[in-house]
Amino acid sequence: MKVSIIGVTGYSGIELVRLLLQHPKTEIVSIHSHSQNGKEIAEYLPHLKQLLDLPLEPINPDEIMKRAELVFFATPSGISKEIATAFVKADFPIIDLSGDFRLKADGQYEKWYKNSSAPFDFLQHAHYGLADFYSKPDSKLIANPGCYATGTLLSLAPLVEEGLIETDSIIVDAKSGLSGAGKNLSESSHFVNCNENMTLYKMNSHQHIPEIMQQLQKWDKTIPAIQFSTSLIPVTRGIFITTYARSKEKLTQKQIWDTYNQFYREKPFVRVQDQHVYPNLRQIVGSNYCDIGVAYNEVTNIITVVTVLDNLVKGAAGQAVHNLNHLAGWPETTGLNLVPIYP
Amino acid sequence: MKVSIIGVTGYSGIELVRLLLQHPKTEIVSIHSHSQNGKEIAEYLPHLKQLLDLPLEPINPDEIMKRAELVFFATPSGISKEIATAFVKADFPIIDLSGDFRLKADGQYEKWYKNSSAPFDFLQHAHYGLADFYSKPDSKLIANPGCYATGTLLSLAPLVEEGLIETDSIIVDAKSGLSGAGKNLSESSHFVNCNENMTLYKMNSHQHIPEIMQQLQKWDKTIPAIQFSTSLIPVTRGIFITTYARSKEKLTQKQIWDTYNQFYREKPFVRVQDQHVYPNLRQIVGSNYCDIGVAYNEVTNIITVVTVLDNLVKGAAGQAVHNLNHLAGWPETTGLNLVPIYP
Amino acid sequence: MKVSIIGVTGYSGIELVRLLLQHPKTEIVSIHSHSQNGKEIAEYLPHLKQLLDLPLEPINPDEIMKRAELVFFATPSGISKEIATAFVKADFPIIDLSGDFRLKADGQYEKWYKNSSAPFDFLQHAHYGLADFYSKPDSKLIANPGCYATGTLLSLAPLVEEGLIETDSIIVDAKSGLSGAGKNLSESSHFVNCNENMTLYKMNSHQHIPEIMQQLQKWDKTIPAIQFSTSLIPVTRGIFITTYARSKEKLTQKQIWDTYNQFYREKPFVRVQDQHVYPNLRQIVGSNYCDIGVAYNEVTNIITVVTVLDNLVKGAAGQAVHNLNHLAGWPETTGLNLVPIYP
Amino acid sequence: MKVSIIGVTGYSGIELVRLLLQHPKTEIVSIHSHSQNGKEIAEYLPHLKQLLDLPLEPINPDEIMKRAELVFFATPSGISKEIATAFVKADFPIIDLSGDFRLKADGQYEKWYKNSSAPFDFLQHAHYGLADFYSKPDSKLIANPGCYATGTLLSLAPLVEEGLIETDSIIVDAKSGLSGAGKNLSESSHFVNCNENMTLYKMNSHQHIPEIMQQLQKWDKTIPAIQFSTSLIPVTRGIFITTYARSKEKLTQKQIWDTYNQFYREKPFVRVQDQHVYPNLRQIVGSNYCDIGVAYNEVTNIITVVTVLDNLVKGAAGQAVHNLNHLAGWPETTGLNLVPIYP
Repeated sequence: MKVSIIGVTGYSGIELVRLLLQHPKTEIVSIHSHSQNGKEIAEYLPHLKQLLDLPLEPINPDEIMKRAELVFFATPSGISKEIATAFVKADFPIIDLSGDFRLKADGQYEKWYKNSSAPFDFLQHAHYGLADFYSKPDSKLIANPGCYATGTLLSLAPLVEEGLIETDSIIVDAKSGLSGAGKNLSESSHFVNCNENMTLYKMNSHQHIPEIMQQLQKWDKTIPAIQFSTSLIPVTRGIFITTYARSKEKLTQKQIWDTYNQFYREKPFVRVQDQHVYPNLRQIVGSNYCDIGVAYNEVTNIITVVTVLDNLVKGAAGQAVHNLNHLAGWPETTGLNLVPIYP
Repeated sequence: MKVSIIGVTGYSGIELVRLLLQHPKTEIVSIHSHSQNGKEIAEYLPHLKQLLDLPLEPINPDEIMKRAELVFFATPSGISKEIATAFVKADFPIIDLSGDFRLKADGQYEKWYKNSSAPFDFLQHAHYGLADFYSKPDSKLIANPGCYATGTLLSLAPLVEEGLIETDSIIVDAKSGLSGAGKNLSESSHFVNCNENMTLYKMNSHQHIPEIMQQLQKWDKTIPAIQFSTSLIPVTRGIFITTYARSKEKLTQKQIWDTYNQFYREKPFVRVQDQHVYPNLRQIVGSNYCDIGVAYNEVTNIITVVTVLDNLVKGAAGQAVHNLNHLAGWPETTGLNLVPIYP
Repeated sequence: MKVSIIGVTGYSGIELVRLLLQHPKTEIVSIHSHSQNGKEIAEYLPHLKQLLDLPLEPINPDEIMKRAELVFFATPSGISKEIATAFVKADFPIIDLSGDFRLKADGQYEKWYKNSSAPFDFLQHAHYGLADFYSKPDSKLIANPGCYATGTLLSLAPLVEEGLIETDSIIVDAKSGLSGAGKNLSESSHFVNCNENMTLYKMNSHQHIPEIMQQLQKWDKTIPAIQFSTSLIPVTRGIFITTYARSKEKLTQKQIWDTYNQFYREKPFVRVQDQHVYPNLRQIVGSNYCDIGVAYNEVTNIITVVTVLDNLVKGAAGQAVHNLNHLAGWPETTGLNLVPIYP
Repeated sequence: MKVSIIGVTGYSGIELVRLLLQHPKTEIVSIHSHSQNGKEIAEYLPHLKQLLDLPLEPINPDEIMKRAELVFFATPSGISKEIATAFVKADFPIIDLSGDFRLKADGQYEKWYKNSSAPFDFLQHAHYGLADFYSKPDSKLIANPGCYATGTLLSLAPLVEEGLIETDSIIVDAKSGLSGAGKNLSESSHFVNCNENMTLYKMNSHQHIPEIMQQLQKWDKTIPAIQFSTSLIPVTRGIFITTYARSKEKLTQKQIWDTYNQFYREKPFVRVQDQHVYPNLRQIVGSNYCDIGVAYNEVTNIITVVTVLDNLVKGAAGQAVHNLNHLAGWPETTGLNLVPIYP
């Protein structure tokens, strides 16, 4: 399948290139960028020398639709909602890695992204592509979930779907490496400010909260809200999420673990750890795995879920390829048997 | 005052040397180590060349008591409970940075440290030196609190003492740099395993939990338990603690912030941040400050407290000097006006 | 081709697993370790869960030769010289990633490795597999070059083969990440000692010096010696080598650059950078590339060569696979079109 | 002595604040910044809360001269050459940490800083304050040396002053942490680009080259040029310089070491390491020490000097205070007995 990438110079776009170059069924036919047109990509990204000999082109939807069979948007939020229009109208397949098509409810995008949203019917038309939880999309417009949202939803799905927890007790303490904050230059991404540091950056105000709530409430309408904060840790890749919730009834460690194990048995990209084992970031970097460990405190009745994923793979480009596989009808692991880079 | 340090080659002992060399009222007269006797300390620790010209000596309590007026134990747990006996019997002033004299209740030390405890009457005799909360010790045997314990207690004190929270709702998500894990060689402290990684290492089983509970229950007997886990982040120094608790009643962000601000107004080493500002590690490294930010979520009713401190200063050697100042009757900030090393 | 790996739990062995799992023509049929026998590898290395379901087995050459068609040794130095005997005698194909078969001259191994060497005729029989410089091996016993040796030889080859430099003027300033120092626990690999630090660790005494000299003197007998030191930098992967040499005659920047460009035009894994551009570590991590930039100082007449490679890929497992491709007669890039992990 | 700081919000200015707050004879009476006027400094730099309660003020020379007795410029290059005029004309004491007054020869500043220079007579009037090499300045306008220049000159001084090396053989391979690159936002200081990376950034073109040459030629007029390149390593603080030069005659390791030891015996801030010991960054961070190790290769005749210093202390603010001590006639170590922060 011939594919194009719009927004190839951001971290998610760069990672898409890596995954698609190693995918047996795709060919990248064009790459596009607002800001860097004209140059060969390897001039701009020297790691791609000899691997991708394509120029950065401006974004011309008609041209793209002639050459490619599907387009990825790896643009910052606010771009695809404008540019995707031509593709959507032509019913051309789109996988959008940004937040522009994730939120269904009126006004939510405006509230959390501080920007006007895509047209309401486009939002309704888009398929929220939480790739481990579906196999055939009902739309050719896939909204790829956010990185924190993916990790939080995979952490909570068994508890919420099985109705095990008090619905108002969810606390999510999420930590991310700096690639999650994007390529923009800012005080908060200056090496001297990040290195040897840890910083909480969005207290109950991260824009992934509404897509998490939207999906949780699909699973259980009675969940009222979650406590959600995000911190930066001094690593390049990886999300580490600790989730707390109170069990409705007394349980055992074994029961909780069995629940997760059973729930994810058929999901190739979710690896539930052995009992009393918690995953660390390094064991998933570079791969599409989401690894999960669970604990139950018999004194406090609190369930703790420890979840790790690579924000650029499972949290972005890897899930996008997973969604591509669903859309194309290929086996879901096609091109995604990536071995984590360890050490 | 002439002081000796036992266990000077561990990270807390090394930091004690730094602080005592810059303290206007102390002189280090001897340094002691089990493992490295005979050498000049600067051979072993080249950063001290020309700064401390003393040999590492074996531990001879009688000799120490002749030369010094006070002794610091900066030994791993399990050492001072044996060696301190001679000093305690002579009513010689001791500040013990290890966990050996912190727990009062019978059997607690055995349970959490997997080792026989100091004699029961010594444990009763020891003063738990949470230095911001007292000024005159009632004993010459000071048990310096643990690093996580200090941060957690300072995070929770205003909430617990003012009775603001549901007593069974406390969740502590603590992260530490590697110096907190000590000098021992282990898989978990190998650079390749720590770098670019984050690892949860003690789920509800850290040995600081009982001293936290002991102090919390002094403040409010009805607190039944806390949820407490610890993770390693790839930094050398610093503890970052996020604490969650549910407010008993609806409050406002401003009320919570006022409570903390008022509570710590007279404490020179606790700096409550401005509203909606959360501290980061780098702003306290090298200093004796504990910086605290607080948030209140009006939807979930959850109070979040973000607390940072330098585990080797406020969490160990700095608090030990603070306790020394109390013991000696000097102003509490003597020798502790350390400017954080930034950047 | 069915292959076995001896020494699979070290960093080079782990990386071999990653590369061989993604290689289209190989199947790992058994994995072997001295120290960890019996366990499933994923218990020991959780990143391999679901990717490699093999137990760690003891080392039984006869068994291995029955099941596999080739064996990799990824053991520390001193092991393969003992264990390889059975395989060599059976003329069974071996690729040895350790230093045991690299040095031809009598007494060199003893001098630099402080250990007795493999039998002299085995040493003569072994092929030093500098993979970019040959295509058909004359032996089934391949000695895979060292990581520093690979980078230094690729830095110097054009200058030495073209006779451009004063032969006594070579200075090599090499820096490596910690994975190059191996998995052993030591003071020098403790996170607290490596992080925020840089340390020179072998001044003119690194064991890769003799294999560099052996190869340089193959190219130009008159080279008497090199100045060579190695430092550790706080990264996990990557070698960064700065090489200095004095030009025999006045040249221009362009002439030097043309020489390199021409020399490496047909080598798929050496990427000469554009003029005035120097490579950084991140652009090669995870890949088999060696990237090189060159400068010429018209005032001092000094040529500077800046070379980067991933010590675990190009400096170990990747070059081993490259040697496998040569040995098997496959195209040399088979299984090695690895896209660098960036960011 | 009452002092003012202009450019207090850069890393050198911030470090000056730390040192001056701990200096027994100075009081900071005002702090000045182009960009951040009006705010309390602790709002901008939270680590200074409760330590320095001064507002950031605009730069008014007349006002400053009324309130202070000396002014520090910690501004980027190009600022003090303009603003210092009023102070110079009033013969008011200035210590300038920027490069604006370091170069004497006509046209050098223009060439290396790409900017018009300070007036020629000001340049001649300024004292190049290499603080270990003089005790009484002949001018009240002190040009504080650059960080790389300080390390390089201290590395070479014994060799050059004693005439031991071939004058055209000097090669300097310098590495710096990111604080040396300043606070400006740029691709090269983005965490994702620095972390896990090493990058050569100025090949024979660093602006400290001319001040190094100016001083070397004061010591030995016949030195024609040096080879000098600089790389960034992923640490916050510290410079690590490896310097190579060829000995004129055959020497021994012991002779070289004796030369250094003898040369620096009376210099309190230069610590020559024991034989065969090389310093690492961590042993000087936070202190004013420059630590040096030397090696001699009897085969190649190359002398290697390994030098470390904290770029913000010995390479900037610490040397500025050292110069202040000289200017004020205080003992040179006043306020500078800083214990390195280890770990």
